[in-house]
Amino acid sequence: MALSTDPGITQDELRLAARNHGMPLEALRWPITPVGLHYLLIHYDVPLVDPAGFRLDVTGAVAKPLVLTLDDLRARPAVEVVSTFECAGNGRAMLEPRPISQPWLAEAIGTARWRGVPLAELLEEAGPSSDGVDVVFAGLDRGVEGELEQRYERSLPVSEAMGAGCLVAYEMNGGPLPPQHGFPLRLVVPGWYGMTNVKWLTEISVVEEPFTGYQVATGYRVKQTEEEEGRPVTRMRPRSLMAPPGIPDFNTRDRIARAGVHLLEGRAWSGRAPIVRVEVSVDDGRSWEDATLLRDFPDPYAWCAWRHGWTATPGDHVLCTRATDETGDTQPLEPEWNIGGYENNAVQRVRVHVD
Amino acid sequence: MALSTDPGITQDELRLAARNHGMPLEALRWPITPVGLHYLLIHYDVPLVDPAGFRLDVTGAVAKPLVLTLDDLRARPAVEVVSTFECAGNGRAMLEPRPISQPWLAEAIGTARWRGVPLAELLEEAGPSSDGVDVVFAGLDRGVEGELEQRYERSLPVSEAMGAGCLVAYEMNGGPLPPQHGFPLRLVVPGWYGMTNVKWLTEISVVEEPFTGYQVATGYRVKQTEEEEGRPVTRMRPRSLMAPPGIPDFNTRDRIARAGVHLLEGRAWSGRAPIVRVEVSVDDGRSWEDATLLRDFPDPYAWCAWRHGWTATPGDHVLCTRATDETGDTQPLEPEWNIGGYENNAVQRVRVHVD
Repeated sequence: MALSTDPGITQDELRLAARNHGMPLEALRWPITPVGLHYLLIHYDVPLVDPAGFRLDVTGAVAKPLVLTLDDLRARPAVEVVSTFECAGNGRAMLEPRPISQPWLAEAIGTARWRGVPLAELLEEAGPSSDGVDVVFAGLDRGVEGELEQRYERSLPVSEAMGAGCLVAYEMNGGPLPPQHGFPLRLVVPGWYGMTNVKWLTEISVVEEPFTGYQVATGYRVKQTEEEEGRPVTRMRPRSLMAPPGIPDFNTRDRIARAGVHLLEGRAWSGRAPIVRVEVSVDDGRSWEDATLLRDFPDPYAWCAWRHGWTATPGDHVLCTRATDETGDTQPLEPEWNIGGYENNAVQRVRVHVD
Repeated sequence: MALSTDPGITQDELRLAARNHGMPLEALRWPITPVGLHYLLIHYDVPLVDPAGFRLDVTGAVAKPLVLTLDDLRARPAVEVVSTFECAGNGRAMLEPRPISQPWLAEAIGTARWRGVPLAELLEEAGPSSDGVDVVFAGLDRGVEGELEQRYERSLPVSEAMGAGCLVAYEMNGGPLPPQHGFPLRLVVPGWYGMTNVKWLTEISVVEEPFTGYQVATGYRVKQTEEEEGRPVTRMRPRSLMAPPGIPDFNTRDRIARAGVHLLEGRAWSGRAPIVRVEVSVDDGRSWEDATLLRDFPDPYAWCAWRHGWTATPGDHVLCTRATDETGDTQPLEPEWNIGGYENNAVQRVRVHVD
């Protein structure tokens, strides 16, 4: 991973930012993120898939390999899950030095209602070998990364894949998956960072040796140097974000608000345990008050809403919000640096000019 | 407009790029751009609109002002138009020096099927004053630009507004307008650059003096210095883009392709006249061959597809494409600079490594 101490974003980063995009933070006002506002990170190209010819293979170390059409999948009992996704690299562009990759600020998030077939049922039907270690999920998208030509592949330990909640999804928010979210099929693993939710899913394979593909063994690892083995990126750390109050300046995105009472609102999530506390600071983190939590969804890895009143006085203010989950994990005030720029869940700061 | 000769993109530009986004160029393979792949430029915030309380006012210098609910509009005869949109600032980040605003490369495009009520019918019913000069379209979105607090407003001359083809649209691609495309209502002016298609449209007002609002008199003008009056940005200049062949490198977005025959494909459009010619160069613009045009849509301002065979030989290549419209206007090889970074329709260059 190249690093930069220059505040200027490079042309490589710009090319990524022009095609991938975050969720504009005012969209925190929607409990389910509308299609087109949900964040997107596409490693290679969006493939154009003919659904009639599409097949999902469940293969590898299994007793009975499956080859499934979309009609086969749709004929099975369906389940729905509301799941918040966050890119593992969210916040990368706020690190110093800055890892050169997709330059996310704070917006690489979104929450959708996914519908499909439980992954555990497909795996049970295929019958994984008792020596199975990992389940590998492969997409139709191909590209070059780390000088290796590859299709996008991620794995989960068999126990995680067989756990409740994982879905092979063919619908998003009540409609067919849009092309950019994996049409016709994607994996959904609630609670894990976004890279786990393999799009354009075409093969599920049980393997008896730990999977060592690029996106698990090289990419998506938290480490301080290239040489270190590091630890894998797995479940989302707690995070809270605020819909910025007032109105924006076009060029700077700074906020301008009227003096008086404002209802601050936002959402918070963790992939590890329920959110138990959201705090708000209106003085750049010097003092904190508890916000009111509102749980919109029963799904454990869907974000929850929060609200907090703010009496705005004329002048410049920095508003912050901080989430804590049931494990006691809370957001740091300053980012925790690593060479890939992953898991930066530092507290959001929103500058507001009140007049 | 601030300018930069530094290749590094500033933090202001990055904040804009993180929320607005282009159409990934592989989406040129879809004749109608799926929601979420269409480009987006949102000047301020996406407003959260309650459709039940929503009203469209047709007002100003008219004989009979109208106040219309969404049901009123949906009860009228509907028409559909397929229209290609391009942001007036598309290509801005390839200018030197670079105007500091949304840093578009080449992707600020998209084509949708819009459904709604002809604008001319609403205006006729309201009865514009014979002294009417402009029609002003106002959105619900508010922000600060050029140090002025404003709602987003653009105008059209009465004759353009009364012309065939303009639409007050409530559907995109067969569904309700998504929030980011103007839910519940937007203007669609086929052939004009994107800023004309006012989103979250809430007021249509006939005025008897030329409209001098910010987005017409200050923004969206082609000029060499801030002091000049310049000329307004109106209809789209001709442009052709190619879906890059082969597969991408994640970091650089450079393309890697196999030696052999490739079908190059893309789309071309102009807001001024039909496209009559698309050419392709496989030697960085030194020589050109005519591509085959395929007209997917009868709508005059929808893009048309093109195809061209390329026998790729090992080595590094730069592919280009160039459109010409019926007026004889064609794309320049080098950008034509202006201080706002508008209308840059310079020929696209796609680097491909063949092995």
